[in-house]
Amino acid sequence: MELTGPIVLSDNRYGKAENRVVRIYRDEARHEIRDLNVSTVLRGDFADAYISGDQSKVLPTDTQKNTAYAYAKEPGVQTIEEYALALAGHFVSDVEPVDSARIEVEEYAWQRVSVGGSEHDHTWTRTGPEVRTATVTVRGKGSDQRAWVIGGVRDLVILKSTGSEFADFRTDEFTTLAPTHDRMLATALVAQWRFTTTMGVDWDEVYTGIRARLVESFATLHSKALQQTLFAMGAAALEAYPVLAEVRLAAPNKHHFDYDLGRFGIDNHGEVFHAADRPYGLIHATVSREDAPDAGPAWRA
Amino acid sequence: MELTGPIVLSDNRYGKAENRVVRIYRDEARHEIRDLNVSTVLRGDFADAYISGDQSKVLPTDTQKNTAYAYAKEPGVQTIEEYALALAGHFVSDVEPVDSARIEVEEYAWQRVSVGGSEHDHTWTRTGPEVRTATVTVRGKGSDQRAWVIGGVRDLVILKSTGSEFADFRTDEFTTLAPTHDRMLATALVAQWRFTTTMGVDWDEVYTGIRARLVESFATLHSKALQQTLFAMGAAALEAYPVLAEVRLAAPNKHHFDYDLGRFGIDNHGEVFHAADRPYGLIHATVSREDAPDAGPAWRA
Amino acid sequence: MELTGPIVLSDNRYGKAENRVVRIYRDEARHEIRDLNVSTVLRGDFADAYISGDQSKVLPTDTQKNTAYAYAKEPGVQTIEEYALALAGHFVSDVEPVDSARIEVEEYAWQRVSVGGSEHDHTWTRTGPEVRTATVTVRGKGSDQRAWVIGGVRDLVILKSTGSEFADFRTDEFTTLAPTHDRMLATALVAQWRFTTTMGVDWDEVYTGIRARLVESFATLHSKALQQTLFAMGAAALEAYPVLAEVRLAAPNKHHFDYDLGRFGIDNHGEVFHAADRPYGLIHATVSREDAPDAGPAWRA
Amino acid sequence: MELTGPIVLSDNRYGKAENRVVRIYRDEARHEIRDLNVSTVLRGDFADAYISGDQSKVLPTDTQKNTAYAYAKEPGVQTIEEYALALAGHFVSDVEPVDSARIEVEEYAWQRVSVGGSEHDHTWTRTGPEVRTATVTVRGKGSDQRAWVIGGVRDLVILKSTGSEFADFRTDEFTTLAPTHDRMLATALVAQWRFTTTMGVDWDEVYTGIRARLVESFATLHSKALQQTLFAMGAAALEAYPVLAEVRLAAPNKHHFDYDLGRFGIDNHGEVFHAADRPYGLIHATVSREDAPDAGPAWRA
Repeated sequence: MELTGPIVLSDNRYGKAENRVVRIYRDEARHEIRDLNVSTVLRGDFADAYISGDQSKVLPTDTQKNTAYAYAKEPGVQTIEEYALALAGHFVSDVEPVDSARIEVEEYAWQRVSVGGSEHDHTWTRTGPEVRTATVTVRGKGSDQRAWVIGGVRDLVILKSTGSEFADFRTDEFTTLAPTHDRMLATALVAQWRFTTTMGVDWDEVYTGIRARLVESFATLHSKALQQTLFAMGAAALEAYPVLAEVRLAAPNKHHFDYDLGRFGIDNHGEVFHAADRPYGLIHATVSREDAPDAGPAWRA
Repeated sequence: MELTGPIVLSDNRYGKAENRVVRIYRDEARHEIRDLNVSTVLRGDFADAYISGDQSKVLPTDTQKNTAYAYAKEPGVQTIEEYALALAGHFVSDVEPVDSARIEVEEYAWQRVSVGGSEHDHTWTRTGPEVRTATVTVRGKGSDQRAWVIGGVRDLVILKSTGSEFADFRTDEFTTLAPTHDRMLATALVAQWRFTTTMGVDWDEVYTGIRARLVESFATLHSKALQQTLFAMGAAALEAYPVLAEVRLAAPNKHHFDYDLGRFGIDNHGEVFHAADRPYGLIHATVSREDAPDAGPAWRA
Repeated sequence: MELTGPIVLSDNRYGKAENRVVRIYRDEARHEIRDLNVSTVLRGDFADAYISGDQSKVLPTDTQKNTAYAYAKEPGVQTIEEYALALAGHFVSDVEPVDSARIEVEEYAWQRVSVGGSEHDHTWTRTGPEVRTATVTVRGKGSDQRAWVIGGVRDLVILKSTGSEFADFRTDEFTTLAPTHDRMLATALVAQWRFTTTMGVDWDEVYTGIRARLVESFATLHSKALQQTLFAMGAAALEAYPVLAEVRLAAPNKHHFDYDLGRFGIDNHGEVFHAADRPYGLIHATVSREDAPDAGPAWRA
Repeated sequence: MELTGPIVLSDNRYGKAENRVVRIYRDEARHEIRDLNVSTVLRGDFADAYISGDQSKVLPTDTQKNTAYAYAKEPGVQTIEEYALALAGHFVSDVEPVDSARIEVEEYAWQRVSVGGSEHDHTWTRTGPEVRTATVTVRGKGSDQRAWVIGGVRDLVILKSTGSEFADFRTDEFTTLAPTHDRMLATALVAQWRFTTTMGVDWDEVYTGIRARLVESFATLHSKALQQTLFAMGAAALEAYPVLAEVRLAAPNKHHFDYDLGRFGIDNHGEVFHAADRPYGLIHATVSREDAPDAGPAWRA
């Protein structure tokens, strides 16, 4: 099928990615740190920049960068959700051609070091690998303005050394996997949760609480498959926080294969594993409240 | 707003990611190589695996892996588009609970080495960084089955040392960027093109042709912004290949900053640059034929 | 100068790199985990493999891999130092052509998750980015056999938001840096410490203790330069542990630049920084006891 | 053994790592590009900076950065070897406390794009993954000054689909590998060659020539092991270029495992492979002329 219609710009967006903003609060002897990776994305009346090269409506990505750093100072970064709401709101409210703004933030965690048994005032070590995330979309001017907040965590690497099986699965002519009733289960979880509101939420408390629910569900559910574990994790978060509309989970199955020591006359007994790199199973689940409001542009990349 | 409705599984998919399949054709003295990274994703009647842990409909990701390798042997990998069509078709047609399958393939390029001025029969060096990609979706059983093919390239790193400007842009109180009428322009392009059909296409010829159009447009258009360059690149591909419905482009602006040598009494004259890492501008454009057929699930991650 | 002498093999070594060994102890309900990346390197009578292709003395790297996994079962991995000593000793003592073996181990840390306020028996989350390391070299047969142990940590990312300056440095015609008496100081430390013995050391206690000394020194020394801080860190470790002969430290200066908000009429006051990627200062220091025994092959890559 | 001697600074060095210098020659319509990653390392009279924090002899790493960019303008970057010689010479000759300087350079390759069948004047695409390297050390003042140049290539990924075997190797109780007389052989080569002189060398010609010898040897030698192949590669380079004193090669054995399709009733016939990530064999060889001059500090990290 050959097409002959006119060629058009059917979608576009632009922004500044990966601004590495670090904010220190130092009003008191005990400093606080917020270590962020901030990306801005704008949509709006920008077609001329693409079609004719006319930049008159384009706010440079360099300006977006400056703004991300300036907003880290004032209003500051109490939480990444609030910071992103402020920054997105600014772009939509104050820059005429902008119809919607999306701010993606990653926050790297730091732990205060201990000196002589006490927490130090201004020294930290990085912890991870897990990273807290927030994705905020603001759309519309004036009283039509609406906002969506998605919180999340990525690279939450979690492992259980028993309490997991995989059996009674469908087979075909290409199936060689043996069923198992005791295996290691490990993943590097990415989870994102959509809020029903942007106001009145204790963002830090909810983050800590959801993370705890995810981890507890992973640990305590006797798992018949990573699929089942993911659904349980998402459901636990939704049950605990009625302010959540849905939870999206993506989980690589970080395979740990029993190393065949029997060839050397050694019984492995599920104690020595090879941690494989690629390929890996990759499982996705979206768990929702049935009465969740429409997501609007919240998930639009 | 607090939700009280039932908690449901609203979406799910699963598969085996990053199978590193290498296929050698060695029927003749002159061998051929196809070096692939293959990911499979299945959708269908899999809710029970999530909700109750019942795996009876789940084709293990390990089986999907085996199948990806087996299909590399037969029917083989003439092109990644054909290979992915065959593999996706198998999962949907032959595995009852599967409603749709998505196969994502990356192909790494190798160049035959020269020995004594002649191409060697069975030795190659890797070339890159650019990677050819294909994403194939097959949905539906029997006569309802439909398929979508998206070709592409990623990490096509391209740079021009003049013929690019950025000026006459919008400013606000956070704007400090100076306009420039001669700058370096560089990106690591990701481009994907959706075909209107899955049959009768010379996949290799189209890939080579589109790549040439993209590169030529980048080189020859005097650029007023990366946005303008991207639109021109997409339009050039569509114009050359009526079998394409749309082209999606994502381009980081790999900033090269003039190094300030004036502080040392040296005129730079646009010859010495610092190649910056982060942050970077990130520009997206979708260029389409107005009469393009609906994309269906082609772009659904 | 043109050379005409015979061409010879002047050095060689070989091994299996990055065996991802995971050892679970599950004799009791409360499991233990050791998550390792193990590399083996052998030296010895292997010249024929290079010169004539004669493999008769070559123990395959595949065999080395099998051995690394088998030794993780028995004698097991109480500490990575003991495991590496056993594995290296085996290669030298039991494989005739091997003159010396070097085992490099990285250990990834896991933290037991909390469920209902209690530590879970068999579920953990990964912590990091810091990684504990050990490098063990064993050389010689029978009563001539000797061994060297180097412990270490890498990617210990540490930051202080004040208590650091850099001023009164040498300048030349290319110097533009302004002196500062209050800056952020951050690094991703690599430290390695050489032990004077392989026996009678409480490896875990020493690791924990050295890490604490390194971190405390970084926090408490008012720093006139990263160089000074590194020397103090190494000296603190040596002072606390007379069983150490030397400490080698490598520290990228992870620059955090004050973002210039004055352009927008905002006083930064040392609160908003850009965390830069490249380039970075890179400082090395070796701190030793003057009566340290010779290092022998301990540091030989 | 417990040490009681004084704690001393036994070694130190410092510099600026990974300056991303891009140099464009634009005197004519046809531009030229040099894309570099430059690291500087200084040794000298810097102990006070470590021990007492006295920075008076320390040339800041920021100044080293400025100098790397300034030298890219003048004398410029005809070849990375000459650029590094000039930059290292400056630090040693012009900065009093510096005893020796080591400059490490990586050069990324770009290929001129084709437009309408002709090479474009100022647009290129990146090629790789291979990277040309140079490591230059200059030591001493005035007439005592000496210099060493090491050229090299890294990430030269090369593969042959036949003409490689591995058999008749030593076995022990942990050996399970089957001998093979036809396997795939692949590596990502790192090679470095030390020159006997710093003058009168056509650096570009030698680089191209050595690369050709390395590749041809890999292709044409029927390989009994990667060890044998490496020695032959190094010897070929030395034979072709008497100006070389030695060649050091490091080669991961990028394992490609025959995928077991027999389980599905399919004969593989050496055509379908799994390209594995970790672990990998890692082979090192140093090939030298017996009359090579002493390496001095050339290889000192």
